[in-house]
Amino acid sequence: MRTTGSRKTTEVPVGNIGIGGRNPVRVQSMADTDTSDVSSTVEQLLSLWHAGSELLRITVNTPEAAKAVPKIKRELLIKGCGAPLIGDFHYNGHILLENNPEAAAALDKFRINPGNTGKGDSRREHFFEICAIAKKLKKAVRIGVNSGSVDEELLSKLERSNAKKKKKTPEDKLLLEAMIASVLSSLDMAFEAGLKKNQVVLSCKTTEPNDLIYLYRRLAERTDQPFHLGLTEAGGGMKGIVWSSVAAGVLLSEGIGETVRVSLTPAPGGDRRDEVYAAKEILESLDIRHFSPRIISCPGCGRTSGDLYRQLAFRIEAFVRERAPEWQKKRKGVENLKIAVMGCIVNGPGESKAADIGISLPGRNENPSSMIFEKGKEVAAVRGGLERLAGEMFRRIESFIDKNYGVRS
Amino acid sequence: MRTTGSRKTTEVPVGNIGIGGRNPVRVQSMADTDTSDVSSTVEQLLSLWHAGSELLRITVNTPEAAKAVPKIKRELLIKGCGAPLIGDFHYNGHILLENNPEAAAALDKFRINPGNTGKGDSRREHFFEICAIAKKLKKAVRIGVNSGSVDEELLSKLERSNAKKKKKTPEDKLLLEAMIASVLSSLDMAFEAGLKKNQVVLSCKTTEPNDLIYLYRRLAERTDQPFHLGLTEAGGGMKGIVWSSVAAGVLLSEGIGETVRVSLTPAPGGDRRDEVYAAKEILESLDIRHFSPRIISCPGCGRTSGDLYRQLAFRIEAFVRERAPEWQKKRKGVENLKIAVMGCIVNGPGESKAADIGISLPGRNENPSSMIFEKGKEVAAVRGGLERLAGEMFRRIESFIDKNYGVRS
Repeated sequence: MRTTGSRKTTEVPVGNIGIGGRNPVRVQSMADTDTSDVSSTVEQLLSLWHAGSELLRITVNTPEAAKAVPKIKRELLIKGCGAPLIGDFHYNGHILLENNPEAAAALDKFRINPGNTGKGDSRREHFFEICAIAKKLKKAVRIGVNSGSVDEELLSKLERSNAKKKKKTPEDKLLLEAMIASVLSSLDMAFEAGLKKNQVVLSCKTTEPNDLIYLYRRLAERTDQPFHLGLTEAGGGMKGIVWSSVAAGVLLSEGIGETVRVSLTPAPGGDRRDEVYAAKEILESLDIRHFSPRIISCPGCGRTSGDLYRQLAFRIEAFVRERAPEWQKKRKGVENLKIAVMGCIVNGPGESKAADIGISLPGRNENPSSMIFEKGKEVAAVRGGLERLAGEMFRRIESFIDKNYGVRS
Repeated sequence: MRTTGSRKTTEVPVGNIGIGGRNPVRVQSMADTDTSDVSSTVEQLLSLWHAGSELLRITVNTPEAAKAVPKIKRELLIKGCGAPLIGDFHYNGHILLENNPEAAAALDKFRINPGNTGKGDSRREHFFEICAIAKKLKKAVRIGVNSGSVDEELLSKLERSNAKKKKKTPEDKLLLEAMIASVLSSLDMAFEAGLKKNQVVLSCKTTEPNDLIYLYRRLAERTDQPFHLGLTEAGGGMKGIVWSSVAAGVLLSEGIGETVRVSLTPAPGGDRRDEVYAAKEILESLDIRHFSPRIISCPGCGRTSGDLYRQLAFRIEAFVRERAPEWQKKRKGVENLKIAVMGCIVNGPGESKAADIGISLPGRNENPSSMIFEKGKEVAAVRGGLERLAGEMFRRIESFIDKNYGVRS
């Protein structure tokens, strides 16, 4: 596990965990239930938490939602979930927090969007009101700027001064400059309102990976507050996953980003936990954190024999997913286990040797037995179909873990 | 569209297209059918090609497979597919190519794995035999090194010389050094065998993104041959997509990589075209290439009203997928179209304005009409359910394209 990486950041405690400093990059997610519906919201938050989300966010948009917050927190605690709860505020956050002190107390962090706290003088006033509550209750805030809701007045000001310049900034870059200015001026306001460095997380999200990379690199030069990272409005399916991975991957590989949220549009009837799984895989892929044993498997080609190796790969994946929570409870370091499931002689033995435990299935026209390797040595040659091979691998994986990972005290 | 980027590379013509030089980064994929089964192979290759794969690879592992190659090429041409066909060879490539001149002639590129051409003197001899055929027939080759099948003799040699060193290279780095040495010494051999610079593509694949990034960065300093890029054995599902995206994304964002293949393990019964879709999304995400209109949509939260905006987003996505081929045939630049489908007032109007055409649905407790924007201006406010909104958007997208993209001559 790598800690937050090359960029040195201030640690911001949020509830019972920390963001930035020497903490690992944190995984977070947001519910899409109606917050005023306590039972649905609690159910979804628990599922996100079980999937590995270390911070949980809900929108707090109405008095009913605000009233539900302390109930949600209580239910989560009853169910054993102490994960920090974050409230997402727009437009009326200052009113909701003032009128609902129990909600304010139950939340561990307030997300403020500086583009949405009001217009003119009220923008500043409302921003200060939220910060004053955070100060009094010793809560963290996230100043969360978003390309879809950038401070219009700030943008107009930049446009006016740009119009007077000889060498003009292109229009699309101007929006990015306004976003950076919004983050930094809001950070100054938060300090002015009495918040400490260890109370502020920053984000500056857009829909285009190149823009996101530009924005966070620039901000990393200007501040050591921890960053909440993620492409906004990434969309659904393959597009959302790929775009989020590329954008966050480039930045995290440079050590930028202290907490990650992947914003996927779930397919109708889809699984909200996908955003948690995606965030974990991004961190796993760069060796920043390990959450559970990983599986190396080949894409198959004309050499591999039909569906057998794929079925085995997916069976082993399902087995690992099911067993991992117990392994992790009982054994130290099991999240580093590497399993290979390969489909032919070309790279099969090589990758299986390189893994902790690997199986190399015979391709078409190859010797019809599967070689099993442990720690680089061939330990068995097995013939048979899916059930035989899966059973053998399950047994060997369990026994490998028993032998090689110390008991957790 | 960006061309290959900051790294200057030699153009390698492969069949009727080029890799490297001023060519766009190419998308490629590999079939997993039994090559000797001509009709299944042709069917899958056509589906990969229709999905956007610009180069098509098949394994050529047996005399039967080699005999099928010219038939496959002929069938592809009859179906209108002139995409370059690549043969993947291991162990017996020199024999198959020598004994099957029609197969050699039908292929546009031979993939050689220097770890798998033989042992001792025969390794070099077989490598030369394949290069001699490529030279005679003016074919391209890819020297494809893979962590699962690295040249064992070369690795042993490095291990022996490392043992004598005072400051030893760590063992895992030694494998990477062996892979780089294998690529570069094989490239020298290819030149020695008479191949020209414009005949050789290189790859050096591993299963770990950090290693892949290291290897390709190092190779980019040493050679200007174009690179075939991709994480090997990435695995299936979310893991395969995320890891491939992060690894290729980091390198492509630095201008490294001239053709991409995403190696996903398909779920049993899964769609092989996913590897093509993933490769296209990686290139789209970094603005390197545009293939079809893109959709920005929010992840939803407690503000968004149930499933409606998701359903609309996925309906519009399906509509665009279906209509895009015709649009692209008839209209210039339609692949740059940006469509937003947003679920509430927070970022909805902002992102919809920023897109070419966007719809911002009402969230819970908001004014129940959906705002439609074109080129940043609100053009309609529509009330109604999924069918009404989808119909309105389909009509407006068609008409936007008619008005804004020139007819292709």
